[in-house]
Amino acid sequence: MDSQGAKDAVRSLFEPNSVAVVGASEDPTKFGYLLMKNLIELGYSGKIYPVNKSRDTVLGYKCYPTVKSIPNDFETVIIIVPAQHIPQIMKECAEKKVKGAVVCTSGFREAGEKGAELEREMLQNAKIGGIRIAGPNTTGLLNVYNGFTSAFVKISKPRRGSVSIISQTGMFGSVLLEHILSTQAYGLSKVAGLGNKADLDDSDILEYLEDDANTKVIAIYAEGIKNGRRFLEISKRVLKKKPVIILKSARSGSGGKAALTHTGSLMVRDEIFDAVCKTTGLIRVEDIEELLDTIKAFAFLPPSKGDRIGVIAYTGAGCVMSADAIEKYGLKLAKLSEQTMQKLKRFAPDFGILSNPLDAELVRQGIGSAEGSLVLALESYLEDPNVDMVSLVLVGLTKESNIWDVDTKKVFSEIKRKFPAKPLVVTNLASKEVIDEYREILEELGIPTYPSLLRNIRALSALSKYCRRFPTETKY
Amino acid sequence: MDSQGAKDAVRSLFEPNSVAVVGASEDPTKFGYLLMKNLIELGYSGKIYPVNKSRDTVLGYKCYPTVKSIPNDFETVIIIVPAQHIPQIMKECAEKKVKGAVVCTSGFREAGEKGAELEREMLQNAKIGGIRIAGPNTTGLLNVYNGFTSAFVKISKPRRGSVSIISQTGMFGSVLLEHILSTQAYGLSKVAGLGNKADLDDSDILEYLEDDANTKVIAIYAEGIKNGRRFLEISKRVLKKKPVIILKSARSGSGGKAALTHTGSLMVRDEIFDAVCKTTGLIRVEDIEELLDTIKAFAFLPPSKGDRIGVIAYTGAGCVMSADAIEKYGLKLAKLSEQTMQKLKRFAPDFGILSNPLDAELVRQGIGSAEGSLVLALESYLEDPNVDMVSLVLVGLTKESNIWDVDTKKVFSEIKRKFPAKPLVVTNLASKEVIDEYREILEELGIPTYPSLLRNIRALSALSKYCRRFPTETKY
Repeated sequence: MDSQGAKDAVRSLFEPNSVAVVGASEDPTKFGYLLMKNLIELGYSGKIYPVNKSRDTVLGYKCYPTVKSIPNDFETVIIIVPAQHIPQIMKECAEKKVKGAVVCTSGFREAGEKGAELEREMLQNAKIGGIRIAGPNTTGLLNVYNGFTSAFVKISKPRRGSVSIISQTGMFGSVLLEHILSTQAYGLSKVAGLGNKADLDDSDILEYLEDDANTKVIAIYAEGIKNGRRFLEISKRVLKKKPVIILKSARSGSGGKAALTHTGSLMVRDEIFDAVCKTTGLIRVEDIEELLDTIKAFAFLPPSKGDRIGVIAYTGAGCVMSADAIEKYGLKLAKLSEQTMQKLKRFAPDFGILSNPLDAELVRQGIGSAEGSLVLALESYLEDPNVDMVSLVLVGLTKESNIWDVDTKKVFSEIKRKFPAKPLVVTNLASKEVIDEYREILEELGIPTYPSLLRNIRALSALSKYCRRFPTETKY
Repeated sequence: MDSQGAKDAVRSLFEPNSVAVVGASEDPTKFGYLLMKNLIELGYSGKIYPVNKSRDTVLGYKCYPTVKSIPNDFETVIIIVPAQHIPQIMKECAEKKVKGAVVCTSGFREAGEKGAELEREMLQNAKIGGIRIAGPNTTGLLNVYNGFTSAFVKISKPRRGSVSIISQTGMFGSVLLEHILSTQAYGLSKVAGLGNKADLDDSDILEYLEDDANTKVIAIYAEGIKNGRRFLEISKRVLKKKPVIILKSARSGSGGKAALTHTGSLMVRDEIFDAVCKTTGLIRVEDIEELLDTIKAFAFLPPSKGDRIGVIAYTGAGCVMSADAIEKYGLKLAKLSEQTMQKLKRFAPDFGILSNPLDAELVRQGIGSAEGSLVLALESYLEDPNVDMVSLVLVGLTKESNIWDVDTKKVFSEIKRKFPAKPLVVTNLASKEVIDEYREILEELGIPTYPSLLRNIRALSALSKYCRRFPTETKY
């Protein structure tokens, strides 16, 4: 099928005006129950047709014994019944002119030869009717903007935002989703769990997201890439418009073996995939923490204009370790302008050497006020034309501290208002209570916080690499 | 001075029966106030003599105008007045036969030539009286077992435990301390902030901790190492008894420059220091997160008998990424015994391929119970003679989940009781609420949890490397 055909099918899967749920259930221990519940609680606005032989209604919706018996047309189907029934169901869907199908069930190619045969049969029946499939072996799709989902694990109501996620593995998709919803302040747009990728793959979803106005940042978890050349071409095109961050696992021999039994993915040699990332500008990350850190940077920060970092740290050790991290991640320590140096020296004359990284504790002692030192340091750095990005390292704050008399919300709102165009990230090595409070206040303002200064610098490095590579096109 | 002399001095600094505090204050914004407050609130049991010209008492303690005017002998002095007064004060301390001094004040070698001259003068006066110095430019010492401290940043009351920390930089010492107290479940024994290391250095503290019965794990943050050869010899000796974990910053050129103005440390070439770690078996870590992760592993886990890891993951993606991580960190995937395979297959016959990493979700579906699958998987793995360590990857848990019906406390208490001698670590990719709850329950039982499966494997790798290197001596 041509590219436009796939794009239309993906649109049907994310934005269907009606959906049949084959395997809908009222038994709270069944996936078919959780799936229906999610559709209802997320406020999906289209028509829902539950399909289940043994019930008249499911959760208040009229229920049908078979797909064929649904009197109306419907755009999309979600299937969550045992694998052996699915080829036949697909045949009936083809007769109903269904456009897209999400097959949640496992037990296909990933489960051995018998499953592989079922997968081929299902695929063939879909092809005859022109149906495109997401899955099998996946939790499928989520569109935060219309409440459509095929997730069959209990999920919280997501915030709307600009981040879309493509995940090979379904369970991972919904698990990661819950984790993101409860730990990350940015909102989401679309989530696609692709499972075995029997039909639609990362490239198809990428093409759809390329023109999705609600998506500004794309993140991918993949164990294998089906059609490498196509993925490369589409990635190149999409990257000119939006950053694409990828966590590609199955790097090692044993990881590859595990992937084969998990999603039936054939391994891509890791050096080759690394080369693909270098060629295209794909932002490769190593684990989930780095994935989320990087998403957060792109979701919150303005583009960086260069790679020169200014560090403000309230501890000498923070200065030393920041300098190390900047070298490790291939960035440059900004050389402060004469004007900035003069401003700082006016307030901390006795402490001799002031430079970047700035030991802001010296400035605090000079001015005699924590808030004064923080505002002075941040404003000087953010105004300085020699500084492209700023990493702030706060330390040692407890709720009872008398030394740290800072109105956090006021100071950072003002900073954000005055300097919207320069990336600023913050870390705070403090008590758990204070770390949590700072994260909440700052991220509400759109300033990313990280649990360590190394992760501050790593996130800025990813941002600046992407922005240097695509300087004019960057729209995210 | 000989090694025994330094050891006695360090003992005086950690276990003094009396202390003078020069610069004690009742002004809550002054460090001399916070320091006194900490001594009192931590319950230091020795005698306290505040020294301050302008007061008769400080916080209820009789105050003296000078060190000389204190009528009794005292073992140790803490000094927190401006640098220029300190050489003279040291002279008076020498006359009083003081054994150890903590000099908190900054403005010495790290502040330029004038400071360096002051440092030399102070040191000379101390030497004449046989006084050994911790600092200057440091928050100094903390002994959790007797409540003695020279910390002048507000700290919480620490839990007693087996972890001791040597930190070059004072602010870092107390900041890190507060962070540890509020985020880590293990307890502490001694903390030493060494600042400029004008006299006592890491090696001296290491020698003291070598025989400290309350210390089983030692962690070091250093920007420079003063006497490399001595440090190497002492490390070698101590490592045979206890693991020593080191975060050595100032790795890069710019980091080295920052360290010079911070603690006046001369840079050690990073390749050389790496070689030292390889030669001695010092456990080198890269940042604070890795430092705390590694401490936690040694504080909680029994020694590992080998490098073969068993992975139980409730998601296929967790299996794939764990296998990658195991290869990355130089460990081996355990080959499960025939007995273990049989046990697992009995309950999940339809799912074909069961292996290590184990996709425990298949077992859960087979048994029809989350708790059943968890107990079966954990017990089979922990009993298996081919498995040296276990990494458990839980996912997707929300408070409302109907699928995850596990009595966490009961299951893991029982596991810990039955298998005390095999290292087990847990990660949980779930909602924030559930992650926090699991961390609390499991770490109360002495089972370390980490925020990612990569960090699970990294921590086990550090443990197993140390245990392989020092297999018989390991006492920690």
